[in-house]
Amino acid sequence: MKIEAVDFFYLAMPEVTTAADGSQDALLVRVRGGGLEGWGECEASPLTSIAAFVCPMSHGVCRPVGDSVLGQKLDDVADIHRIAALVERDSMDLLQAAHTFSGVEMALWDLLGKLKGEPVWRLLGYRSSEPKVPYASMLFGDTPDETRDRARQVLERGFQAAKFGWAGYGAGSRNTDADHVRAAREGLGPDALLMVDAGQIWGNDLEAAASRLPDLEAAGATWLEEPFHASAYDAYSALSARSSRVRLAGGEGAHNVYMARHLIDYGGVGFVQIDCGRIGGILPAKQVADYAVARDVKYVNHTFTSHLALSASLQPYAGLSDHRICEYPAEPKSLAVEITREHLLPDANGQIKAPDSPGLGLSVNAIGLTKYLVDTEIKVGGRTIYATPSFT
Amino acid sequence: MKIEAVDFFYLAMPEVTTAADGSQDALLVRVRGGGLEGWGECEASPLTSIAAFVCPMSHGVCRPVGDSVLGQKLDDVADIHRIAALVERDSMDLLQAAHTFSGVEMALWDLLGKLKGEPVWRLLGYRSSEPKVPYASMLFGDTPDETRDRARQVLERGFQAAKFGWAGYGAGSRNTDADHVRAAREGLGPDALLMVDAGQIWGNDLEAAASRLPDLEAAGATWLEEPFHASAYDAYSALSARSSRVRLAGGEGAHNVYMARHLIDYGGVGFVQIDCGRIGGILPAKQVADYAVARDVKYVNHTFTSHLALSASLQPYAGLSDHRICEYPAEPKSLAVEITREHLLPDANGQIKAPDSPGLGLSVNAIGLTKYLVDTEIKVGGRTIYATPSFT
Repeated sequence: MKIEAVDFFYLAMPEVTTAADGSQDALLVRVRGGGLEGWGECEASPLTSIAAFVCPMSHGVCRPVGDSVLGQKLDDVADIHRIAALVERDSMDLLQAAHTFSGVEMALWDLLGKLKGEPVWRLLGYRSSEPKVPYASMLFGDTPDETRDRARQVLERGFQAAKFGWAGYGAGSRNTDADHVRAAREGLGPDALLMVDAGQIWGNDLEAAASRLPDLEAAGATWLEEPFHASAYDAYSALSARSSRVRLAGGEGAHNVYMARHLIDYGGVGFVQIDCGRIGGILPAKQVADYAVARDVKYVNHTFTSHLALSASLQPYAGLSDHRICEYPAEPKSLAVEITREHLLPDANGQIKAPDSPGLGLSVNAIGLTKYLVDTEIKVGGRTIYATPSFT
Repeated sequence: MKIEAVDFFYLAMPEVTTAADGSQDALLVRVRGGGLEGWGECEASPLTSIAAFVCPMSHGVCRPVGDSVLGQKLDDVADIHRIAALVERDSMDLLQAAHTFSGVEMALWDLLGKLKGEPVWRLLGYRSSEPKVPYASMLFGDTPDETRDRARQVLERGFQAAKFGWAGYGAGSRNTDADHVRAAREGLGPDALLMVDAGQIWGNDLEAAASRLPDLEAAGATWLEEPFHASAYDAYSALSARSSRVRLAGGEGAHNVYMARHLIDYGGVGFVQIDCGRIGGILPAKQVADYAVARDVKYVNHTFTSHLALSASLQPYAGLSDHRICEYPAEPKSLAVEITREHLLPDANGQIKAPDSPGLGLSVNAIGLTKYLVDTEIKVGGRTIYATPSFT
């Protein structure tokens, strides 16, 4: 088939706050061709990602992402490789391109899966979709008591794992942080997995991060996530060498395969966390998963938006039965919930799987999303190069 | 003073082609405060970089760059550090932010320099502005004869150094590449410095790159630039180990200090090339220059647009007398030439220097640029969040 149209839908909650909650807006991507449509989702800053798709060319290797996608042939997995290589080359100097293409690439997989009647994970070469243990991705409370209550609620909802982060963690005293981590463990009970996300708070300050390790170890934390700037491999490596039981996790900031590999090779992380909405989509994420297997590092998705993004983020490691932990948006805004008609709900064992149905296996609730549409228009040189499309 | 206004001017030539010529459009930034104004320039994709400044917030660490700049205090160098840290934190998930802030940051330095009556290089701690040897940055010709002619013309114009690249180099046979490199050397004569830019053409294909080394060594090339993807440190390192006289150069793709340091530490480059229009401006570039000095690597600017960008790109290593090579746009489009009233022209020794006058030391030819203005408007949710401002 030929890629006939790529449409971007900028959605947002009526109010967007400074909370570390990525489900407050979304950029849905619809790709149409051969009478079918596929859907994907870009991570963060809808307007900027739209601009990178429609912007006028600056020169030969700073072309809009759209130039590498529209009108292309899409009949097989090799076509996605080819289109991705085109984007990488022709948008080399357009920084946002990786984020923009991520959502488009997901939609290409969804479309190809529908064409072939196969789930994406099978097109990726996996023979089965293995169960994953979803962890509830939560913000710390304002007080340790609040953190404890949140952890209890997570347990009551049936989760066997939870991650707490942000909300001041790492910015105050070591003692306050320790109180929160201890409270989270108390709330979760002794058996559930506990992870902690520092959200890059220490920059490259090794000692600040290292000072938290004893309290994390005492609480039996599985990992400490993003202690440092996404590219501060030296600090990662040094902290990794000083930590015995708590492994480091990171990788969500990777916008190409190299960056994720570097965090493994130079940073010494034990868990590599990939956001398919940032790294360029499902294919580069699968390459990271392969690399993680080879390096004995665990692959984990990074997802805090819709179940469309969740399904996409499960595909790259769907068949890896030893890579079992999965980020699960536990407090999404209604917008993120309503993007798909179906949801990836935990089964009787509290586990989820990438769907068996074709493509990403979920249908988009297009008409129901109209109320979240942010009407957007971009005019350049007197010509409208982007206007919010219609769902129909 | 307080930063009162930040205005973006999208400029373009009437026709923009797929040539590897970055001077075909420009994004000028004007920052106003305290009755003064400073100017800077972002590298590539004006529309996308504007969007990253004005876009609605997605969440707490995906805020528009504007939120970290507008209304801020600017009285001293420490304020630029502080504002840069704000952008890094609050726009963590906005990929384009580094490119957008680069032009703003240059303008902040220009403004601060004017406030203090000092050139930027002095504010950076240098005591002198040392002469640099400009190299003409050229595209290879379509034929070796054309390449030879171009090299001769460069020599006749008084350049003592030239870099050739792109235009198919690396994409065809080794013999064709060798013919072009030999022709370039013939045209330049035996004494001028010759550099070759592969424009990432070999991805991470070590053997393809290594096969060109003998011909580059035979032609006495000073460096081979960007043989690989900007993040392919393994390939850089392996090629570096196999090259005796020709050093590797790279770094223009770095959008933070870490990436440039990694190319030195993990990639083994001999020359680190920084574009102040991408790495986040002058301050991070200065940090890379300091690091290069410590690691015995040569710092080089990456610039292929206006002399405003050229002045900005000279500041970070202005005081380093041992780091003498400087990229000089040799075939800029009229737009790039007309951005500044003054130009950094080679002196009797064929050398250039960062200006001694306050700020970046060049004045912007605002009214004269009106003919290049690309009328642009961005509307979100019924509100115009960007419209091309007036130069007056």
